[in-house]
Amino acid sequence: MPASPPLPADLHEQVARALREDLGTGDVTAALIPADRSARAEVLCRQPAVICGAPWFDDTFRRLDATVQIRWHVAEGAAVAANTILCELSGPARPILTGERTALNFLQLLSATATSTRRYVEAVAGTRCRILDTRKTLPGLRTAQKYAVLCGGGHNHRIGLYDLVLIKENHIAAAGSIAAAVAEARRQVPRLRVEVEVENLEQLRQALEARAELVMLDNFDLERMRAAVQINRSHAHPALLESSGGIALSAIAAIAATGVDYISVGALTKNIEAVDLSMRFASAAS
Amino acid sequence: MPASPPLPADLHEQVARALREDLGTGDVTAALIPADRSARAEVLCRQPAVICGAPWFDDTFRRLDATVQIRWHVAEGAAVAANTILCELSGPARPILTGERTALNFLQLLSATATSTRRYVEAVAGTRCRILDTRKTLPGLRTAQKYAVLCGGGHNHRIGLYDLVLIKENHIAAAGSIAAAVAEARRQVPRLRVEVEVENLEQLRQALEARAELVMLDNFDLERMRAAVQINRSHAHPALLESSGGIALSAIAAIAATGVDYISVGALTKNIEAVDLSMRFASAAS
Amino acid sequence: MPASPPLPADLHEQVARALREDLGTGDVTAALIPADRSARAEVLCRQPAVICGAPWFDDTFRRLDATVQIRWHVAEGAAVAANTILCELSGPARPILTGERTALNFLQLLSATATSTRRYVEAVAGTRCRILDTRKTLPGLRTAQKYAVLCGGGHNHRIGLYDLVLIKENHIAAAGSIAAAVAEARRQVPRLRVEVEVENLEQLRQALEARAELVMLDNFDLERMRAAVQINRSHAHPALLESSGGIALSAIAAIAATGVDYISVGALTKNIEAVDLSMRFASAAS
Amino acid sequence: MPASPPLPADLHEQVARALREDLGTGDVTAALIPADRSARAEVLCRQPAVICGAPWFDDTFRRLDATVQIRWHVAEGAAVAANTILCELSGPARPILTGERTALNFLQLLSATATSTRRYVEAVAGTRCRILDTRKTLPGLRTAQKYAVLCGGGHNHRIGLYDLVLIKENHIAAAGSIAAAVAEARRQVPRLRVEVEVENLEQLRQALEARAELVMLDNFDLERMRAAVQINRSHAHPALLESSGGIALSAIAAIAATGVDYISVGALTKNIEAVDLSMRFASAAS
Amino acid sequence: MPASPPLPADLHEQVARALREDLGTGDVTAALIPADRSARAEVLCRQPAVICGAPWFDDTFRRLDATVQIRWHVAEGAAVAANTILCELSGPARPILTGERTALNFLQLLSATATSTRRYVEAVAGTRCRILDTRKTLPGLRTAQKYAVLCGGGHNHRIGLYDLVLIKENHIAAAGSIAAAVAEARRQVPRLRVEVEVENLEQLRQALEARAELVMLDNFDLERMRAAVQINRSHAHPALLESSGGIALSAIAAIAATGVDYISVGALTKNIEAVDLSMRFASAAS
Amino acid sequence: MPASPPLPADLHEQVARALREDLGTGDVTAALIPADRSARAEVLCRQPAVICGAPWFDDTFRRLDATVQIRWHVAEGAAVAANTILCELSGPARPILTGERTALNFLQLLSATATSTRRYVEAVAGTRCRILDTRKTLPGLRTAQKYAVLCGGGHNHRIGLYDLVLIKENHIAAAGSIAAAVAEARRQVPRLRVEVEVENLEQLRQALEARAELVMLDNFDLERMRAAVQINRSHAHPALLESSGGIALSAIAAIAATGVDYISVGALTKNIEAVDLSMRFASAAS
Repeated sequence: MPASPPLPADLHEQVARALREDLGTGDVTAALIPADRSARAEVLCRQPAVICGAPWFDDTFRRLDATVQIRWHVAEGAAVAANTILCELSGPARPILTGERTALNFLQLLSATATSTRRYVEAVAGTRCRILDTRKTLPGLRTAQKYAVLCGGGHNHRIGLYDLVLIKENHIAAAGSIAAAVAEARRQVPRLRVEVEVENLEQLRQALEARAELVMLDNFDLERMRAAVQINRSHAHPALLESSGGIALSAIAAIAATGVDYISVGALTKNIEAVDLSMRFASAAS
Repeated sequence: MPASPPLPADLHEQVARALREDLGTGDVTAALIPADRSARAEVLCRQPAVICGAPWFDDTFRRLDATVQIRWHVAEGAAVAANTILCELSGPARPILTGERTALNFLQLLSATATSTRRYVEAVAGTRCRILDTRKTLPGLRTAQKYAVLCGGGHNHRIGLYDLVLIKENHIAAAGSIAAAVAEARRQVPRLRVEVEVENLEQLRQALEARAELVMLDNFDLERMRAAVQINRSHAHPALLESSGGIALSAIAAIAATGVDYISVGALTKNIEAVDLSMRFASAAS
Repeated sequence: MPASPPLPADLHEQVARALREDLGTGDVTAALIPADRSARAEVLCRQPAVICGAPWFDDTFRRLDATVQIRWHVAEGAAVAANTILCELSGPARPILTGERTALNFLQLLSATATSTRRYVEAVAGTRCRILDTRKTLPGLRTAQKYAVLCGGGHNHRIGLYDLVLIKENHIAAAGSIAAAVAEARRQVPRLRVEVEVENLEQLRQALEARAELVMLDNFDLERMRAAVQINRSHAHPALLESSGGIALSAIAAIAATGVDYISVGALTKNIEAVDLSMRFASAAS
Repeated sequence: MPASPPLPADLHEQVARALREDLGTGDVTAALIPADRSARAEVLCRQPAVICGAPWFDDTFRRLDATVQIRWHVAEGAAVAANTILCELSGPARPILTGERTALNFLQLLSATATSTRRYVEAVAGTRCRILDTRKTLPGLRTAQKYAVLCGGGHNHRIGLYDLVLIKENHIAAAGSIAAAVAEARRQVPRLRVEVEVENLEQLRQALEARAELVMLDNFDLERMRAAVQINRSHAHPALLESSGGIALSAIAAIAATGVDYISVGALTKNIEAVDLSMRFASAAS
Repeated sequence: MPASPPLPADLHEQVARALREDLGTGDVTAALIPADRSARAEVLCRQPAVICGAPWFDDTFRRLDATVQIRWHVAEGAAVAANTILCELSGPARPILTGERTALNFLQLLSATATSTRRYVEAVAGTRCRILDTRKTLPGLRTAQKYAVLCGGGHNHRIGLYDLVLIKENHIAAAGSIAAAVAEARRQVPRLRVEVEVENLEQLRQALEARAELVMLDNFDLERMRAAVQINRSHAHPALLESSGGIALSAIAAIAATGVDYISVGALTKNIEAVDLSMRFASAAS
Repeated sequence: MPASPPLPADLHEQVARALREDLGTGDVTAALIPADRSARAEVLCRQPAVICGAPWFDDTFRRLDATVQIRWHVAEGAAVAANTILCELSGPARPILTGERTALNFLQLLSATATSTRRYVEAVAGTRCRILDTRKTLPGLRTAQKYAVLCGGGHNHRIGLYDLVLIKENHIAAAGSIAAAVAEARRQVPRLRVEVEVENLEQLRQALEARAELVMLDNFDLERMRAAVQINRSHAHPALLESSGGIALSAIAAIAATGVDYISVGALTKNIEAVDLSMRFASAAS
């Protein structure tokens, strides 16, 4: 994991949209604070977590008032203990109050995904197995969530329908066989890697024969996974094996021990347990 | 709860954005299916759930190909048992495959919120207490999540910073007192209801004196909540009392029994446990 | 009225759009001025007016060239005499010339609404009656006009179809009675206030029985208004009474004297008499 | 005037934006009407007016529900008497109720401009003088208002800063003389017509010598206008003369009689007196 | 040609869109460079060219990181020899690497059009004939290409369907005659110039009789062009004559010698031969 | 090449934008044609070409008027002889005239890229070498051009900065060595292929040792390319070799004969020679 993965091009749009939906016709409560009042605040994380989302947090306030200062105490992707101060803010009170909820919503969401990812990553520590995300994401937030998975130490499976060929049952049926489907994919989009989803060991052999670079083992039990790893290793053109399908955190270590290369976990991005954050204000004077 | 609450104006933007992030430069796998191939599929819900999101699901396919037919078997907001067929799709195979993930992402997300809300609503059944959401939402998806809360039988707290005055510690400090803060709010925005967040019974009394329409009891224990309900009932200008703050599902019934009017639950929208859905394809012929 | 009401979230979009429609493929006349020429100018208001729109005015120039300096001599919402200098600008000549018309268009429009509002507000001075706007606004400019009404000392009725339940003839017919319509509204959207539009005193009584928070008296004459105020005051659950319907400025004082709480005036935002502004340039040197 | 002038490319954006600002999180009142209820309604114009804006009106409902039928009784640009039925609508009740205000807001605004324009046009009837609009428009609505001016029988001055060179005092000062400013404009943008704003007859002669195609007579009195027309007619290269500057409707005929070619009137688009329209519903049955 | 023509209002949108399509989910390679590394680079032009596009180039980097410094050695619209250093960049290494390709894509495209234009302009040097562009442009880039034509010393024909009336065969057939078509155009849009496309000398005479301001000679050979110039010069109301239709650079001088006023060249904007640019990095230290 | 590659998600935006820039305030010339006039037209290709862009062409007319019928005679990606009728249009005359230029601009641009690509593809016919595009594209049109390359029989190199790691001189310098740079890339983004740009055979060996999947041979002459192919084939982990850098069509066959896997050609997308198309109208009757 890089200290800080590349930022997506639509970060600014995500922040602008979030502010628009919260601000609407204007913040009626912040108007109760005199315009020249300044404030100091800090963001407290009440639970152990992996912190992620600082660029979204910062951009929220920058759009409201470029003079708000934010000083981070923890690095993007860092694991913190409960009751850690994450950052301090200072500047005019109104924009700090106006941006508080939007900025925290990004931080608690992306830290949730990073934290959840880190738990899975730690469960496979010591093996060469890696944790992958999926396309089961929150609509409109995919790039942010994929970034959070990287901050958590996981890796990104395909971003969308355009950057990997993933051959499933329908495509095999349409092409007539795994071999035919892979061949057609190679002909159409040679620049991309090809993955084949298989349901049994016979399909795995066909996928390997077709020289798929990745093979997804769909709902295999541990014994069949081990068999799959054996078949793959002894093949002239081994693929990367991905274990997929409704996998609980408690089962991860055992799956990693089978020797598969990847475990993909939809739960990383489709389930969210927001990290418990709050903003605390110091007494302020104008 | 209405059978189907009003749809937000940004529904179409949410769907367009979600398709854009998934499709990118084009669906390279659907291209393996002949263009004239038709398909039939059904969406299966593998767990008990409250179903929500059909307008988003439908719009996803309508944007890809207006000839895809969708027949729903369950109404928006209906509770279903595990392994219920939710709807059937028929039409050209490619757009059905291309839209599958985006459409399911909306359905599993919004059904999750509706389902979670229903659990809280059922926990207060038989009392007059109502379940409220908060502004702790997923950025860019607030209107969709607020809609899902209604489908689940909950009610919407303020949508954003613009449709309720919520007076907190900062505003009270700036104004000098609760009375002064409420008076200033009345002067500035008479059209909106005013809520005051209080931390003790003395502040509650001040808020009632100031004729706030809602009072948020921040982190009160059960005993103090009961005292608050008493004070409120015997006041000449009783307010609606909202219990707020880190409330677990197991504690809901006891809180409702204190006589508070509302319990607001951030978990409804900030935490997501995606409903387990899948699309199953029938064998297809062109 | 606050010195300066909250700014709407779409202010920046409104300015960007206005500049786009005026600039098009580029300002061909400003190109006649050397690029390094500087200029000083002032905005003159030729008539008595309430000034409103400075944030839109400022944002226009900031987008064109962040080095243009603007010094305001009057506060947002201030009433000025004829021939008052509102502000001074200095900086590079080209962006000042390019932004002149767009910036003035915002200022003359929003000051027009603020000025018109102030006239109505003054007509009810000394009574407890308040002036409300309506949804009869210029498409795409609603939030700006609602802001201008606040600057003029008026108050905002509902912003759109989403922040108040306004029960009219159609809804009463669909529900069967005022009581049934209000009950259904309460069931569907308990968080919002409910207003009922009534056409006679009998309907008023029904609306009060149904505990509507607001009642709109549609085209009542003064006598019936007075009767309505009496009925309302002697009711156990009095509502706020709104007088509505084609009301001329000359009739306002008499209506306010009846004791109604609000007079809503479509003319504030659907009719515009632009305030007479011009920009005057001092002799400039590079 | 064409029966129906060309439609601007941003019509659809204007309608989408207007619906967004009115609908917000959803129409809470329309939800009180059963989803399967149908309705019939008609739009009544209560005053004599020139009708304009049907394409915007129609597009509003088409976006909400493509099954709403609209039958127009009057043509775009037609003059109607008071209490004329403009069009009839039929279809599902909810989208008709939801779109009512937005559709009427466009129609009352654009008909206002068309009606006002027609009055000025009629004041110059029988002369060869034409009525022009200006760039003093409502931000974001310029193309719609320019269209309304055409519907009213007026003509469009420049649309923005990009389709005519309009040389004013600043440009003359920067170039050193009218001749130099026009020459520079010709060199830079030969494709566009050049207009010069003049303040006296000597400047008029210089502008004619420089072969400007249009000359704007800024705040000339009638006598000087007549002199200007004489000078222009006897010149080898006569220009089109435009009378400009704070012109009241009552003064138009006298100005047109001086022989000027154009009178430009800022009031057409910066002042709005909304046409009095209402939608009346017939009793409906599902 | 001005040293620097007016900039189009959609410049910022063009740059934002270009960055979005290149950056997508983030620059994965720039992340290999430490975040605190600085860099210095220069843009080299490997061929003789007219340079155009600096405002687009600059805006690309400004959006990525406002601290990147760019020092231009050549003016917009200047002709440079092969192997000229155009500008130097310094600042943080990551944004310079990330923006490199997008910035160069603008510069190589717009310089291509400016360079091509300059060749045509030089081919008519010494005559009064001018080179015009057309509407055969790259979709979404018209304003940028029209700007590049100006930088190259050419002139802009109409920008779009809205700023000139161009009467062609279809319109003549619909109106019945050239005279009728021009008369109708005058009636509908008096503010705009009218051009008539003619296919023979008889049509030219009709167009002159109708007082068209411009006449397009469609696919005339040199002899007929000379005849057209004669007819036009001896007419009481001569028009500007435009030679149009598949014109090669080698034929330009001979056409200009016929005395036509304009030669319009689709090739300027529909054909692109990108100027050969590269960015060279100096050794960098943090 | 698929008969028709996947369509990019931003196709609709590209068309809407192109129509907006051409239509502006409205098509003033089409208004000369009666609104009820119908027309029939055909698109003629005057030169041998590979046709590409039908989905953009169709969408242009669909947005203007959904009743325009288009019947294609040639398939997307088909090679046609000079003077081939590509498609026929019929429907209301106005939208056909209004959309003509925008639709043809897409078709002549994308067919140009497809045609150019086909020439390169044919030059390597019989070898296993494939033609790749680059990121040297027209800003805002990348996805459309990448699609056109596929239609021409070429293949897509990376779409943007996000779907391949391309290690160049700067990254190697920052990391210290090719091995270190590749290792860091693997650590950061294991899901993506890694390509290394090398300038000599020693760097090639290092890249192969580092197990890069692709190696770009930057400006190698034929002899060194052959040596590179030898080294690569005899290596335990051969990569795909890409020949890059200023490659003329005439040199392609010789390069392909060296045995490299890919030749990337910036000219495919940065240079455009628009295909010569025109729309011809049949005589029309209402």
